[in-house]
Amino acid sequence: MAGDILLPQLIEALRCLPGVGPKSAQRMAYHLLERDRAGGRDLASALLEAMDGVGNCSRCRTLSEQSICPTCASVTRDQSLLCVVENPVDLQAMAQATDYNGYFFVLMGRLSPLDGVGPQELGMDNLESRLQEGQVREVILATSATVEGEATAHYVSEIAAEYQVVATRIAHGVPVGGELEYVDSGTLAHAMRGRTRLGQA
Amino acid sequence: MAGDILLPQLIEALRCLPGVGPKSAQRMAYHLLERDRAGGRDLASALLEAMDGVGNCSRCRTLSEQSICPTCASVTRDQSLLCVVENPVDLQAMAQATDYNGYFFVLMGRLSPLDGVGPQELGMDNLESRLQEGQVREVILATSATVEGEATAHYVSEIAAEYQVVATRIAHGVPVGGELEYVDSGTLAHAMRGRTRLGQA
Repeated sequence: MAGDILLPQLIEALRCLPGVGPKSAQRMAYHLLERDRAGGRDLASALLEAMDGVGNCSRCRTLSEQSICPTCASVTRDQSLLCVVENPVDLQAMAQATDYNGYFFVLMGRLSPLDGVGPQELGMDNLESRLQEGQVREVILATSATVEGEATAHYVSEIAAEYQVVATRIAHGVPVGGELEYVDSGTLAHAMRGRTRLGQA
Repeated sequence: MAGDILLPQLIEALRCLPGVGPKSAQRMAYHLLERDRAGGRDLASALLEAMDGVGNCSRCRTLSEQSICPTCASVTRDQSLLCVVENPVDLQAMAQATDYNGYFFVLMGRLSPLDGVGPQELGMDNLESRLQEGQVREVILATSATVEGEATAHYVSEIAAEYQVVATRIAHGVPVGGELEYVDSGTLAHAMRGRTRLGQA
């Protein structure tokens, strides 16, 4: 297809999607052109609308079309609880899986100095002014269980201490339904350290 | 994210891509919104340009931006050879892997009556008028080695016979570098039937 530029350009553009290499991008491009041009046009307009229309909530920083996201706009939630997560998708997972009824704060990343992600990029000043308001009594740290996630949790807990706010960390341990023999040693060590008392003895 | 519609709409639109389920679509949408909005916009414009700008070559039916694709427009190729393939990507694979120097004809599918794909949809009338021109001496059938591919090859060979054109089928057998023990029995049976003489004895 020498001489053609639109097809190679489309294949190259598709590679901005995570997990899409040259082969999948080619398959996607041919699929759309041969069998689903309407789908391709719909995708183009959905992309444009979302890239232009979705911003960040001015309060919790999650992705939102309004300046205040529906969760932050709710008045029925518990104002004394603030759950700190790394990404909007983590917020969604927490909201769907638990009966947590407080508010959220989304860092949109985690501390990673080598990648140039410091407290500034994670909106720590927003978080501080949130704590300064004085309503939050407990900050629940639900960052991921990686080295950067732990460092981020530690950093936020120090900020919380400055404002006399309790900081808690979600439990790490053996996944529910997990067989011990397949659980990695780091998780097992965590589970042992974090053991809790059963019964009343 | 109740109340937001652009994000769910983008996730839904991404599912038109082959191999993309709900989870990958969600990952893609969040990735673009959180980290690569420029890439998302580029993808949207590449999609629109390709959906509008890429048509089919009027001679060989492959995807092309011009009304005659570069391969068909070439005057240095062997006019007596016509290789029939199912898809533009097959054409590309044949052109890149072999030193084949004739022309191509792309069916854009294969006979599959149950899916409503008959001779009409595969451009068999274009193919006939191509044979009618009288320059083609050999039609090389490079449709896939599936039941539909074989049926399609058989159908084209009958058309070729009407115009006294030789029809040949690409060889099927053990893949180069393949160990016999891992080759399926259908392929082995094919390889046995299609054995050729070695040496001059």
